[in-house]
Amino acid sequence: MPLVNMPKTQRGQETLDILCAAAERVFYKKGYHNSTIKDITSEANIGLGTFYIYFNDKKSLYVHLLSDYSKFIRKAISKKISHFTDRRDIEREGLVAFLEVVRDNQYIYNIIWESLYIDKKLFVGYYEDFARHYINYIEIAQEEGEMRKLNPETVAYVLMGIANFVGLRYTMFDKRDNFDDIADDVATIYNEGLFFPLK
Amino acid sequence: MPLVNMPKTQRGQETLDILCAAAERVFYKKGYHNSTIKDITSEANIGLGTFYIYFNDKKSLYVHLLSDYSKFIRKAISKKISHFTDRRDIEREGLVAFLEVVRDNQYIYNIIWESLYIDKKLFVGYYEDFARHYINYIEIAQEEGEMRKLNPETVAYVLMGIANFVGLRYTMFDKRDNFDDIADDVATIYNEGLFFPLK
Repeated sequence: MPLVNMPKTQRGQETLDILCAAAERVFYKKGYHNSTIKDITSEANIGLGTFYIYFNDKKSLYVHLLSDYSKFIRKAISKKISHFTDRRDIEREGLVAFLEVVRDNQYIYNIIWESLYIDKKLFVGYYEDFARHYINYIEIAQEEGEMRKLNPETVAYVLMGIANFVGLRYTMFDKRDNFDDIADDVATIYNEGLFFPLK
Repeated sequence: MPLVNMPKTQRGQETLDILCAAAERVFYKKGYHNSTIKDITSEANIGLGTFYIYFNDKKSLYVHLLSDYSKFIRKAISKKISHFTDRRDIEREGLVAFLEVVRDNQYIYNIIWESLYIDKKLFVGYYEDFARHYINYIEIAQEEGEMRKLNPETVAYVLMGIANFVGLRYTMFDKRDNFDDIADDVATIYNEGLFFPLK
């Protein structure tokens, strides 16, 4: 059985959305292990039985959220970069898109990283899946002679690490409205390096 | 009262070390919230009362571990880079030192990141403290004309992000013996950038 029993009607989809949004808030506030299905349905203002129309258990709902975040983040990035053709611009704008998503969805970091404490395979799978998409794009950029020919996987984790940690600082520790100066600095590193060339 | 009541004798220090090593294993295996002081003292093979010679509660022990990791990681990096003078070498070797530490101490990632679910202030404090040391070093490298003059804080989180995510991939998802080729690729990004220069 799939993780989620996808609704066939508009109304069913709305209920599922309400359920997922409630689960985000409950997981964020109480943590996954301390949250019960009853907590989630109460928060959603729906009956306990309705939960089981969509999911078999709490973990299925959690995995569904995780998979949704992955798609949601990649979609936000795709949308933001769709007008650009130069990969330097694409990488810079992709970073801004990621920062905007994690700023505007405060549950994302908490819920994704909690997978390490729920089921390590989920955590590893989340990032390996994200990396796979990135590697594909990096390999094309390398073939087209734009990116240096480094190990595409290492490059993917470098880029993901930068986005995640810059995101921690400027969206979780402090919340920024604007990421332009940060993206400019990161783009300089991508384009020219961190160090001045040796004389 | 300080977090830990530091032992004054060699034997006291040994007991504290055994207690901390047991706590690491218990937190790693059961998670912080599901671990009791009794679990930790049983794992350490010491009496429950002995715990309270050193710590007031479970959280004090956890915070002590977190603070120890921070010092331990920075010390391992300092030791590894002490023979180098060129900052390009220092940054590369510092990355290798970090990767070796997290490879050889499998509890580190889990226990540090779990702070986000124990007390967010601890998580923020851990990285802000680590960043503070890094920023100090980056500012000197910028003044001496080796590093480009970018926002030192952004640079610190870029470097921490790279180390952490490359570390996830090559020490947690898979365990590498040798990090030379990875460090070479990351060093190329630091020294020359990710993209080829525009023609």
